[in-house]
Amino acid sequence: MSNSIGLVEPKKVTLDKGLRLESGKELKKIELIYESYGTLNEDLSNAVLICHALSGNHHAAGIYEDEKRAGWWDALIGPGKAIDTNKFYVVCPNNIGGCHGSTGPTSINQETGEIYGPDFPMITVKDWVKCQSMLSDHLKIKKWHAVVGGSLGGMQALEWSRLFPKRIEKAGVIAAAPKLSAQNIAFNEVARQAILNDPDFEEGRYLSKNKTPKQGLRLARMVGHITYLSEEAMRNKFGRELKEEKLSFGFDAEFEIESYLRHQGDVFSEQFDANTYLLMTKILDYFDPANEHEGDLAAAFNPIEAQILVMSFSTDWRFSPDRSKEIVNALIKAKKKVSYIEVNSPHGHDSFLFADDAYVKGLSSFLES
Amino acid sequence: MSNSIGLVEPKKVTLDKGLRLESGKELKKIELIYESYGTLNEDLSNAVLICHALSGNHHAAGIYEDEKRAGWWDALIGPGKAIDTNKFYVVCPNNIGGCHGSTGPTSINQETGEIYGPDFPMITVKDWVKCQSMLSDHLKIKKWHAVVGGSLGGMQALEWSRLFPKRIEKAGVIAAAPKLSAQNIAFNEVARQAILNDPDFEEGRYLSKNKTPKQGLRLARMVGHITYLSEEAMRNKFGRELKEEKLSFGFDAEFEIESYLRHQGDVFSEQFDANTYLLMTKILDYFDPANEHEGDLAAAFNPIEAQILVMSFSTDWRFSPDRSKEIVNALIKAKKKVSYIEVNSPHGHDSFLFADDAYVKGLSSFLES
Repeated sequence: MSNSIGLVEPKKVTLDKGLRLESGKELKKIELIYESYGTLNEDLSNAVLICHALSGNHHAAGIYEDEKRAGWWDALIGPGKAIDTNKFYVVCPNNIGGCHGSTGPTSINQETGEIYGPDFPMITVKDWVKCQSMLSDHLKIKKWHAVVGGSLGGMQALEWSRLFPKRIEKAGVIAAAPKLSAQNIAFNEVARQAILNDPDFEEGRYLSKNKTPKQGLRLARMVGHITYLSEEAMRNKFGRELKEEKLSFGFDAEFEIESYLRHQGDVFSEQFDANTYLLMTKILDYFDPANEHEGDLAAAFNPIEAQILVMSFSTDWRFSPDRSKEIVNALIKAKKKVSYIEVNSPHGHDSFLFADDAYVKGLSSFLES
Repeated sequence: MSNSIGLVEPKKVTLDKGLRLESGKELKKIELIYESYGTLNEDLSNAVLICHALSGNHHAAGIYEDEKRAGWWDALIGPGKAIDTNKFYVVCPNNIGGCHGSTGPTSINQETGEIYGPDFPMITVKDWVKCQSMLSDHLKIKKWHAVVGGSLGGMQALEWSRLFPKRIEKAGVIAAAPKLSAQNIAFNEVARQAILNDPDFEEGRYLSKNKTPKQGLRLARMVGHITYLSEEAMRNKFGRELKEEKLSFGFDAEFEIESYLRHQGDVFSEQFDANTYLLMTKILDYFDPANEHEGDLAAAFNPIEAQILVMSFSTDWRFSPDRSKEIVNALIKAKKKVSYIEVNSPHGHDSFLFADDAYVKGLSSFLES
């Protein structure tokens, strides 16, 4: 693969001092799995933190020895790419609550010796950012050159600039929103109900009963997936194409879009943990920095010192350009350094995963200026 | 209730000659339940047929003796209302495949003596319209003054004008589309998968096992409901309001929108039949009059003689105004009598159920001109 970082390997760190969470609960010991690409320079000034979204993880770029598929942001991270590993030392952790190696619902609860499952405490974006700051300490990175993320990842980048204004030079807030709309919450709630009501969910203790709520997770992913794609992208990709030539007058998948969605749901339900999915959707629902300031988003942005780039995509209807503009307008009102780019892209919310030209140029010149 | 028709009672008719369906299968005997309001005039020229949508039925207006809630289109049908029962004789049948009294999956299959369940044949909009024409014969109505419907009901009104050009004076095609988009089909598919994978679905034979796939039906309704409301309506109605003052950091419904959706799903899952829901979503997916004409919608409209009013609603994102305009443009291309009104309404797709002024005036002047 051209311009690929090539083979990568995850690293693991144990953070012994633990973390008091926003809910009041405590995680006494935290394991974080992460990957890093590129080289940290001598004055430690070229580190870029990547924050993943709902179903993402630490494997942002490069490939593993035994897998063909590259990391989820490989299109953007690598030598000469938007986030240029010839210039930057790029770090991407799997967040706590995740299911790919960091402490989360599938981990053993040290206090009980059992799998956490539903007992894993509720997490917020603030908790994640604090935990990532502990990783920064471990890596001896006093100040990130940039924190960058798309969707829920963009919310973390924004929260970084609020919580640790001295530790972040730039924030790339991509395809995000200052808080979820009622419609966003509604879609998340359908996903949660699909999982919670799957008989194999077993009140969250499915792992210890050797079960997985696959049907629920599959449905959750299917409904989520619809919101990731633009109507235009779906039309161009599938339209009303039939799998067979004629209508079957039955309930097997007969339109291409049906089998695509079923396939997406099937694959996801094999790979992801249901309790983690529940947790991630709640973290999205809870994100609302203005809430501590009587709804005044500009006031919430008051501590920010970083330069902020807000990017949105024309066909994104999950977090539309208007939602990004809410962030931009509040940053302007708070007199912060902000620039805004709306990228024309047909891929809907998923646009942040594709290396469209205007997107790559906008992001790289922001990071390299 | 002012301007209400008052007490109404359903009637039932048995159509003995049966119907050969588009799928090739046959329904040998059909029972149709319907309601009628107002008085048929002497020259039988004031009859208006109402076609219901996905979850609708024959109870379009007025109230039953033992129920408080009026029919689903009571806001539009009644003395002095948009569809004025002082002027028109209004008929609304429950379509075949339904679950409120007409022959459908909950009926007894005369050939086997068992409940149809999943053996009920697949139906199309064309089948419905043919069946409604048999009801017209029974009622001795040679020509409808108008056939009117919203959403899937609007598709039936359009199909009436194509299939029986001599039997329909006017067609009111409200909040409809000439065919479903890939995104529309995707949402329907999620709803179907929710039902089909509910363990209580029992391959469609739940009734004979004294079960109902309530969780599946509930999820199907929840996801459907999101597409019926506009984002604006959700924001105005629920925003991010919490049920309690503080976040619970748990998975009980804590945002108002969550409990609203759960409630809608619960109520629906008590009242509707899962096999019927599956059938209705497929009828929507299959509707595509242009398909028989190599995608040429204007050619499909060639037989039409009726005056057609197409209406859409500004905040409808299920079948947006652009989809209505596809119908209008094809009708213009086919040189048909068409008028178009886009109504400003905040209610999303559900706008067709609310008696907004511009909507009422547009519809009543079309029917009465």
